[in-house]
Amino acid sequence: MYLRSNITRLLQYRSCLTKFQELGFETIYSYNLGKHIGVSAEQIRKDFSKFNIRGNKKAGYNIEELITAINKIFKKNSPQNVLLIGYGNLGQSLIKYKGFSRSMFHIIAAIDIDPSKHKRKTLVPVFPPEKAPEIIKKHKITIGIIAVPDIAAQEVCNLLVKAGIKGILNFSSLVLKAPEDVQINNINLGNELEAIFYHIQLKQKNI
Amino acid sequence: MYLRSNITRLLQYRSCLTKFQELGFETIYSYNLGKHIGVSAEQIRKDFSKFNIRGNKKAGYNIEELITAINKIFKKNSPQNVLLIGYGNLGQSLIKYKGFSRSMFHIIAAIDIDPSKHKRKTLVPVFPPEKAPEIIKKHKITIGIIAVPDIAAQEVCNLLVKAGIKGILNFSSLVLKAPEDVQINNINLGNELEAIFYHIQLKQKNI
Repeated sequence: MYLRSNITRLLQYRSCLTKFQELGFETIYSYNLGKHIGVSAEQIRKDFSKFNIRGNKKAGYNIEELITAINKIFKKNSPQNVLLIGYGNLGQSLIKYKGFSRSMFHIIAAIDIDPSKHKRKTLVPVFPPEKAPEIIKKHKITIGIIAVPDIAAQEVCNLLVKAGIKGILNFSSLVLKAPEDVQINNINLGNELEAIFYHIQLKQKNI
Repeated sequence: MYLRSNITRLLQYRSCLTKFQELGFETIYSYNLGKHIGVSAEQIRKDFSKFNIRGNKKAGYNIEELITAINKIFKKNSPQNVLLIGYGNLGQSLIKYKGFSRSMFHIIAAIDIDPSKHKRKTLVPVFPPEKAPEIIKKHKITIGIIAVPDIAAQEVCNLLVKAGIKGILNFSSLVLKAPEDVQINNINLGNELEAIFYHIQLKQKNI
């Protein structure tokens, strides 16, 4: 089994490799890739070999081959439908976010508790919470995005789990309780700023 | 020097430890913490010892001590001011996001190119781009959040760097070019969904 951190790194590698490819590079050394991402070259070689991706010590890794190999790991046979819960500012910006469809994920409906938001002519239709189980079943949805205020997040999580959702992207700052077979990833933006601030201080000390 | 992945893990540990503390636990084993986060117990012990955090093999780690030790690493002497660029849906939801102020980061102003958004009576005042250098200097801002469409992201990045910004949280899907002493963290939500989907498939195979 691969741990969450391995998976996250592999996806970071791919984002970075795609960039290098766009800039016209054909090969890359683990050292250069690592420097760009903040991961040691050793770790990169370890990760790649764990996923059976091999390079050439002298010429480096072939970028095209690397991207193909990583894509194979994350292969989806078909686009995946996603349900958004919470049609506030965050929810609406997520619907417009282009990075999802690029990865073959499609937010096909939203759920909100506010009746004034229940419209069909918005970018995606917005339904009341009681419609969620039916929509999840009908569209074979496996992933839900929680973009509601903290106070409602656990209740929404319970609703999703009960309706058969197996993966949750959680934007609330709550750590949610769910059965072991449900994969929850948390976006903690406060932690992101802390990490940035830490590195700024570190770089200043080194000067 | 600590790598970005170490830092991110430490912050994840703290989020998780805080949760366990809220649930009434006083001690924790590296194994339990690891299971919760998707990191091996060995990795956790390695990380903690790198930051001089010591535990007791039999009784586990004292949660309070762990949190204090991690807080010390990320100690800020004063709240940090943050500048938001892009006052669209995403930007407005970030201003309302409570996780920032909890970590002592404050978005104190926003920048937007659209004159109809330049208001002082919004939650934070919104200014035109040409005001950015002045605001950054006046409020000693070191971190900028880029929440503009992809097409404008690199230009905004250049503006921030020129005005002295040393850390950027980037929500655009562009990989930004900046000098080495500028720390850029990217939020790639497409990757988050890919990682969740990968784990769902893995769990289903194991059943």
